[in-house]
Amino acid sequence: MTDTPSTEQLVRRTLRGDRVALARSISLVENEAPGAVQILDACFAHGGEAFRIGITGPPGAGKSTLVTRLALGFRARGEMVAIVAVDPTSPFSGGALLGDRVRMGELAGDPGVFIRSMATRGSLGGLAVHTAQVCDVLDAAGFRRILIETVGVGQSELEVAQTADSTAVVLVPESGDGVQAMKAGLMEIGDLFVINKADREGAERGAFAVRSALELRAARSSWQPPVLLTVATRGDGVAEVIERFEEHLEFLRGHGGLDRRRRQRLEQRLRDLLRDRLWRDFQGVLPADLWTTTLEALVDRRFTPHQALARLLEAAGVSPDGGQHSQ
Amino acid sequence: MTDTPSTEQLVRRTLRGDRVALARSISLVENEAPGAVQILDACFAHGGEAFRIGITGPPGAGKSTLVTRLALGFRARGEMVAIVAVDPTSPFSGGALLGDRVRMGELAGDPGVFIRSMATRGSLGGLAVHTAQVCDVLDAAGFRRILIETVGVGQSELEVAQTADSTAVVLVPESGDGVQAMKAGLMEIGDLFVINKADREGAERGAFAVRSALELRAARSSWQPPVLLTVATRGDGVAEVIERFEEHLEFLRGHGGLDRRRRQRLEQRLRDLLRDRLWRDFQGVLPADLWTTTLEALVDRRFTPHQALARLLEAAGVSPDGGQHSQ
Repeated sequence: MTDTPSTEQLVRRTLRGDRVALARSISLVENEAPGAVQILDACFAHGGEAFRIGITGPPGAGKSTLVTRLALGFRARGEMVAIVAVDPTSPFSGGALLGDRVRMGELAGDPGVFIRSMATRGSLGGLAVHTAQVCDVLDAAGFRRILIETVGVGQSELEVAQTADSTAVVLVPESGDGVQAMKAGLMEIGDLFVINKADREGAERGAFAVRSALELRAARSSWQPPVLLTVATRGDGVAEVIERFEEHLEFLRGHGGLDRRRRQRLEQRLRDLLRDRLWRDFQGVLPADLWTTTLEALVDRRFTPHQALARLLEAAGVSPDGGQHSQ
Repeated sequence: MTDTPSTEQLVRRTLRGDRVALARSISLVENEAPGAVQILDACFAHGGEAFRIGITGPPGAGKSTLVTRLALGFRARGEMVAIVAVDPTSPFSGGALLGDRVRMGELAGDPGVFIRSMATRGSLGGLAVHTAQVCDVLDAAGFRRILIETVGVGQSELEVAQTADSTAVVLVPESGDGVQAMKAGLMEIGDLFVINKADREGAERGAFAVRSALELRAARSSWQPPVLLTVATRGDGVAEVIERFEEHLEFLRGHGGLDRRRRQRLEQRLRDLLRDRLWRDFQGVLPADLWTTTLEALVDRRFTPHQALARLLEAAGVSPDGGQHSQ
């Protein structure tokens, strides 16, 4: 098949920003296919220039529309923009129900924009690692602003948001109710707060509630997160969001916070990679059928979970007494 | 200290339903303190009778109020009821901002009700395992209906919800917009759907949207999830939610689905316990300082993530070539 480029060719083309090669590289990385490590190694070595921007918040806040507007705004400033839309699907469903994004017609055909949807999967190091890897590829391919959009506000979305350099939390006027927002841990992760759909009643009140809640947040730096109002469907307020993101980037660069953040994120990523690898190796050495028979005994309550754990560890040659959980 | 009971005494009292002992047992389990394994082993062996009910949905849907009403309703039917409120806090904050629940005054003082809040922590097997363990203790202590309330709709909340036998997804009229609800993976996990705050405009329309979305869901059994309307603050519709939960329990018992669900959940739990244990053991054998020096090299981009991974595995005596991620 002379049409299939070697991994080396694929890497070269990806680094040049060839869109077909880029799409293929990302797919290989996402699927942990042969060549993925080579691609990742090359991209990691050539990356580090992109500003990664997280956009998170509850479903229905209008994140997709805002992201589209932000992409248009960054394009107007001459930046190459990538959008990574992370769609966590439940472990019950085979794939993303909404894997295909119908939106973003306005961005179609612009060679300076690259859009990619990712779905949750059982994957090496989980969704956050995969997102970071895809961003590494986009970074190496020359995209200088990468918008990472997550759906929902759970733990895994927060982890994905943490792979970004700067994160905006998008709310609606009603979710400005500080207590509700805090519950979801959102107040902690935002560098910017956006009250979208601000043409609805209560937007100023919502912004006030968010500002009040932010005062309760422990100050981590001299950056005071702005609370901005937008109507993304009309584009209102979007320019200011972009300006504030750029301002935050300058702030991070100036105060060394960018390096510190990136260091923390790389550490988390290394940890995630390792945990997954250890699990795979363990599964590889476990005698056939032992998992099933142990599970049977657990279901019948002949074993407790800890007895089942000990049995499996012993069979895999790991001392069951080594853990901190023994008495 | 003659006031501190032995673990054996504590277990006996917990199994009798002594509230002080129960609270202490749960704390020991939550903190993975000495004695936790003994307590868990005893409780697991004596449990299996409780019906575990998950209540999940986006922040602001009124879950806490609904859970309080459900507890009152189950009490009126003579059931012992426990509430486990799971508050995931962000990895950035030290503890639960809202750890103390101010609500539930109506339930205070009723010896047939036990309320417990749990916060996310780096813990053996994660939040889902901890929740299941706490439920095992409550189960063994005689609580026959355990309401597991989660905040938010992310991956970890979905995992917690999955430890339940039956799960209600609580929405508000506006979130009935089927597309938004599906995005969060919520349509997949609900056995019941509740449109709360149904005195607001659009409740019937919201219910219709949810029903339409449910038709897209692949049928897993002959159970057709009902979509119910409630106004939890007034108690409207709550009795029907309880009836439908009981109906679902009967359905699960009759069709063997209960055993299958519990088996899946035990398998997931065993997997979580193992993954965490392997990680702890790995950390234990890693030479001092190697983590830091490897991280430095990664931050300086002298190593790629996969090179860093290989170095750490080698140092810990794990073959770096054993994984599926090599080329």
